[in-house]
Amino acid sequence: MTEMKLYDAMRTLRAVRKLRPDPIPEAVLRRIFEAATWAPNGGNRQPWRMIAVRDGAVKKRLGELYTSHWAPYAVTYAKGFAKAPQDVREKHERTIAAGNYLASHMHEAPVLVIVCFHPAMLAVTDVDQDRVSVVGGGSIYPAVENLLLAARAEGLGCVLTTLLCAEEAEVKKLLDIPAEWGTAAMIPLGYPVGQGHGPISRKPVGELFFQDRWGTGYQ
Amino acid sequence: MTEMKLYDAMRTLRAVRKLRPDPIPEAVLRRIFEAATWAPNGGNRQPWRMIAVRDGAVKKRLGELYTSHWAPYAVTYAKGFAKAPQDVREKHERTIAAGNYLASHMHEAPVLVIVCFHPAMLAVTDVDQDRVSVVGGGSIYPAVENLLLAARAEGLGCVLTTLLCAEEAEVKKLLDIPAEWGTAAMIPLGYPVGQGHGPISRKPVGELFFQDRWGTGYQ
Repeated sequence: MTEMKLYDAMRTLRAVRKLRPDPIPEAVLRRIFEAATWAPNGGNRQPWRMIAVRDGAVKKRLGELYTSHWAPYAVTYAKGFAKAPQDVREKHERTIAAGNYLASHMHEAPVLVIVCFHPAMLAVTDVDQDRVSVVGGGSIYPAVENLLLAARAEGLGCVLTTLLCAEEAEVKKLLDIPAEWGTAAMIPLGYPVGQGHGPISRKPVGELFFQDRWGTGYQ
Repeated sequence: MTEMKLYDAMRTLRAVRKLRPDPIPEAVLRRIFEAATWAPNGGNRQPWRMIAVRDGAVKKRLGELYTSHWAPYAVTYAKGFAKAPQDVREKHERTIAAGNYLASHMHEAPVLVIVCFHPAMLAVTDVDQDRVSVVGGGSIYPAVENLLLAARAEGLGCVLTTLLCAEEAEVKKLLDIPAEWGTAAMIPLGYPVGQGHGPISRKPVGELFFQDRWGTGYQ
């Protein structure tokens, strides 16, 4: 049983894209999955289901579908920082290299978790706004975050990916997902090739939090 | 400094709707806010900002706006379980009573956290699907979940609410939120009136997780 503390897990949870094919012990997986079930959600309807894919042929097909979207995405992404200072560019280039590795080795991850949700079980309060809706995610991604934090605490690498949502029809066919359900993420899980989780780089509280009104940075 | 372990925080994080007006020490708030900054997000763009509202008049107005949506919601919610068995009905009635309390005492919470996000900073991969989009939430609600877990670990009550998103225009005006930003949640924070966080009731892993394909419950 892990003894990891909350803040230690959070401050070292980073995207780990190079995963070893070694199997994950059943008891470890079960703790991670149970952590996801605990997440808050609207009206306690728990409008999500997750599929833990370990079947080699299915993982291979998911990896191919992922790659078909990752490859053009990586090209666009690279263009976005082509003229950035060298240190910034090198950082992004490392991310792309790790993303390339993930895409071409996706099937080697011992478990690919596919996150599904039922639109009618969500109370989507921002559906009438003149912008993309996000509120449905409020009953899905807290469970995803719990799963990621638990994976980190158990020493597993993981990364939240959403590119496959653009291939939802194919993914649903492949995994027998009923017509009325949608897909929200794919999370590869596995022990890290390298050091795995570690220090992260984020904006400070003073840039992300305001006091009382927009614009007054939190001191 | 808290010593709470990850799984202990997760398995006892529940919606706490009765909050005391007592102030929250600055160091505690800062730890909770920093926990939110650590969350994973697409391309590390951190497309969210949060406003910590402590101004009494602003909190009062937010409470009024919230109540104007909570009141009709509670009526619809009550109709949904009017014919349920007595034990189920009583459970929902307790939730509604706590919701009524929250709505009418919203301004008493020492801090109301308003979560904002920038739609153009999100990579919304499910925007072409024939269903409500949720993927934008994947770069917002992990930070919200971190904030809730940290609040729980610090002994603060909290609850994720999204009803105010239906009043986005009013909220943006009230808090000087720029036109291009949206709102994704309001989280009241405060020390609990009663026992606060504790045991939660969730579906088991076997009902929420499938193995390899939809329909084969995870054993």
